[in-house]
Amino acid sequence: MSGAEFAASVEWDTLRHVWDEVADPDMRTIYQAYRRTLGLKGRVAVVAVDLYNKAFEGGPLPPSELQNTYPSSCGKYAHTAVEPIARVFAAARRTAVPVIHVTANAAAGPITATNRRVGGLDPAGPADQWDFHPALAPAPGELIVVKERASAFYGTQLVAELVSRGISTVLVVGESTSGCVRATVVDACSNGFHTVVVEDGVFDRSWLNHQVNLFDLHHKYADVLDSATVIGLLERLSAAAPR
Amino acid sequence: MSGAEFAASVEWDTLRHVWDEVADPDMRTIYQAYRRTLGLKGRVAVVAVDLYNKAFEGGPLPPSELQNTYPSSCGKYAHTAVEPIARVFAAARRTAVPVIHVTANAAAGPITATNRRVGGLDPAGPADQWDFHPALAPAPGELIVVKERASAFYGTQLVAELVSRGISTVLVVGESTSGCVRATVVDACSNGFHTVVVEDGVFDRSWLNHQVNLFDLHHKYADVLDSATVIGLLERLSAAAPR
Amino acid sequence: MSGAEFAASVEWDTLRHVWDEVADPDMRTIYQAYRRTLGLKGRVAVVAVDLYNKAFEGGPLPPSELQNTYPSSCGKYAHTAVEPIARVFAAARRTAVPVIHVTANAAAGPITATNRRVGGLDPAGPADQWDFHPALAPAPGELIVVKERASAFYGTQLVAELVSRGISTVLVVGESTSGCVRATVVDACSNGFHTVVVEDGVFDRSWLNHQVNLFDLHHKYADVLDSATVIGLLERLSAAAPR
Amino acid sequence: MSGAEFAASVEWDTLRHVWDEVADPDMRTIYQAYRRTLGLKGRVAVVAVDLYNKAFEGGPLPPSELQNTYPSSCGKYAHTAVEPIARVFAAARRTAVPVIHVTANAAAGPITATNRRVGGLDPAGPADQWDFHPALAPAPGELIVVKERASAFYGTQLVAELVSRGISTVLVVGESTSGCVRATVVDACSNGFHTVVVEDGVFDRSWLNHQVNLFDLHHKYADVLDSATVIGLLERLSAAAPR
Repeated sequence: MSGAEFAASVEWDTLRHVWDEVADPDMRTIYQAYRRTLGLKGRVAVVAVDLYNKAFEGGPLPPSELQNTYPSSCGKYAHTAVEPIARVFAAARRTAVPVIHVTANAAAGPITATNRRVGGLDPAGPADQWDFHPALAPAPGELIVVKERASAFYGTQLVAELVSRGISTVLVVGESTSGCVRATVVDACSNGFHTVVVEDGVFDRSWLNHQVNLFDLHHKYADVLDSATVIGLLERLSAAAPR
Repeated sequence: MSGAEFAASVEWDTLRHVWDEVADPDMRTIYQAYRRTLGLKGRVAVVAVDLYNKAFEGGPLPPSELQNTYPSSCGKYAHTAVEPIARVFAAARRTAVPVIHVTANAAAGPITATNRRVGGLDPAGPADQWDFHPALAPAPGELIVVKERASAFYGTQLVAELVSRGISTVLVVGESTSGCVRATVVDACSNGFHTVVVEDGVFDRSWLNHQVNLFDLHHKYADVLDSATVIGLLERLSAAAPR
Repeated sequence: MSGAEFAASVEWDTLRHVWDEVADPDMRTIYQAYRRTLGLKGRVAVVAVDLYNKAFEGGPLPPSELQNTYPSSCGKYAHTAVEPIARVFAAARRTAVPVIHVTANAAAGPITATNRRVGGLDPAGPADQWDFHPALAPAPGELIVVKERASAFYGTQLVAELVSRGISTVLVVGESTSGCVRATVVDACSNGFHTVVVEDGVFDRSWLNHQVNLFDLHHKYADVLDSATVIGLLERLSAAAPR
Repeated sequence: MSGAEFAASVEWDTLRHVWDEVADPDMRTIYQAYRRTLGLKGRVAVVAVDLYNKAFEGGPLPPSELQNTYPSSCGKYAHTAVEPIARVFAAARRTAVPVIHVTANAAAGPITATNRRVGGLDPAGPADQWDFHPALAPAPGELIVVKERASAFYGTQLVAELVSRGISTVLVVGESTSGCVRATVVDACSNGFHTVVVEDGVFDRSWLNHQVNLFDLHHKYADVLDSATVIGLLERLSAAAPR
């Protein structure tokens, strides 16, 4: 997409993915035309989507068991992603890559992210329901962007923030894969950013939707790479072009 | 989403969907919070996405069999959708609902809809590869919008065209479900339009991606209704408020 | 711009304007091609731009005398506009036209509306510096949109709010004519809304810039009409099509 | 606006401007808060707005004399700007700065740039009326962007084109100062680009509107610098960081 060369790259065939178990031979045949070299180019920014406490409520249980009590929780899928996301944040901070935190407007009015009848401030819920997960909270000085739609780009000035920092690659973590993450990735790509999704750093309430959406994103709009690969690329990029 | 009431509506539980075979009980439980009344409200416009000949090349075969010769074809899925789309177009024209045709830029440069290495004008292909399918071509005077990204809204003036016509409901047909249709539906919803997808009037190269993307769209962003239901609603709307 | 007919209109030649004293015969000749019928069409919304106390600080003096103490004040021009704006708000509320209040982010960071080195929260200033002017404050339930750029449309969901209310005409009041008002009007027009500016309901620090910007807006993007004319049109519209 | 330092800069007080004759002492006092260092930063792209033959029709006469025969012509103001624009294009091409050409859609429909009742293809006019002025035409391979509104950013993918090239500074030439140039500059600034206007490389039908709009742009959104200064900065930038 960009004329720029990859500063750090990885080959398509070396990667295993969470969708391998649902991608049958026909799907693989049909999607041949998307094979390409993957990686990072230019200046990178991490965009972290909706990592507030509501996504983690009720602990690491299957989301279907939490649905009645904590309908916004991604349960075990959320908790499994904490450690990979924290490692990506740490690597970004080490290598002078900005971390931008996107969150929803707790006082949401009639304009909402999706058709879901759950949202806004639950008066019966804990006071910190819309605070960031403690392990994934912004460091002092990091930018926080408040959105009201699924995409982190719609109705926000995320484009201006990225352009004014000279960013070429957007690295996405957060939730949910089939909702705000997907909408954000499609818009990042449309706006001309090279886009990378951290495979074990995004999550969803539903495993099949997580798998198929990651498959779509990887082929059409973004490089889906696991956190270990991404961290290795960030370090190679930093070594090659210290900021 | 809109304050307006439905002029014509249908109940959630009366509908069968193409994703029923992959939506397991857990998925159904998790997505309870999205149940709502579905239908049409205010002025409606049909937005038809990427119905050019390249999507139909090679005839009604499985796309995996067409991949080597016609990598842009959706094969049998495309051909099955022709009749329902043609019926929706006819109902729209009968009821004074505008039909807007969105197509890709055949002379695509480095900015493309997705990461696919297929596109632009195939010099070895037929001269009419980027023409509209003959049964689904614009009627005289109907608007044609040319896009270069997945979403019909990105880098186009579709918002201005819809606003200047006073449209409240966007009715989407076309291809592909997991690509340009999904990106268009998410943006229609973000821009404040009530959005409806014609279930048998959208198609994809891959059946699983078609099913899961329609599931996502129905729950999060749009009412997914079959063409017979949509045509019935258009007729009720027209009878209630003749234009 | 819109296919819709005016529900209430006024003729071009019946109007006097604040720019009449600077528009020489050459300017009038050059701008002949913009003559047209003016008015309101479809559903109307008032968009009020940046009516916070900082614009009124220091009282009704010439802005040049206030520059050292209150560099954000429009002084006498601001105070003269209070009464016309209040009358437009009252007429809108009487006729069920929504009033949407756009304001700046007091905690502005590096992304700002213009290149001005004045802004953000002045720690030495009064606690209510970013509150709405008391006579122009939102009524309960009226929408408040927070922007960080000049245009009320950039980085906000104003399009979605207007679309979901079925609005065709945007009626602009507020400040400054040469800054946020102009940027908002151009974007309203680009997005397909018929746009009207209340001539005595917008203001600026500099009179010449106020005059020339209103001249530009009237010819190119919007109908510039005084508050008495606008209120008359709102009442005719309401009588013709009660909501 | 950007965190990046200027690679090449110039001081505010060293510059004379076309608005000096209309900016009275009060205007200068009021606009003190906008004084700053001016220049270029990061990668630069030239964006040339609407340099088609229609703007030059009838030769270098006052636009008021051309109004009846060539209502789209800027006459003598257009012809005076050809040489400075050509020199900026040449300097850009010498220093590997991309030149992007924005033009209007000759087959304009109901959605137009402004309220002007002049536009589209004049069937009685010359066949090349919408071609680029011969001295200012795109070089082979240079990008052409077609817009239908005033701003080069509205309904186009200019943001994506600039982001994918890693551009930080947008350098604007073309017409008209009070129309498409102004709208383009405001949007460039809103999207986070550092924006520079070539003072003798933009033009308008009306001199007063040209002067006051450049005054507004210089203070609020962009650095207005003459072509000789801009070319000197491009050369210093190129020498400092050869591409």
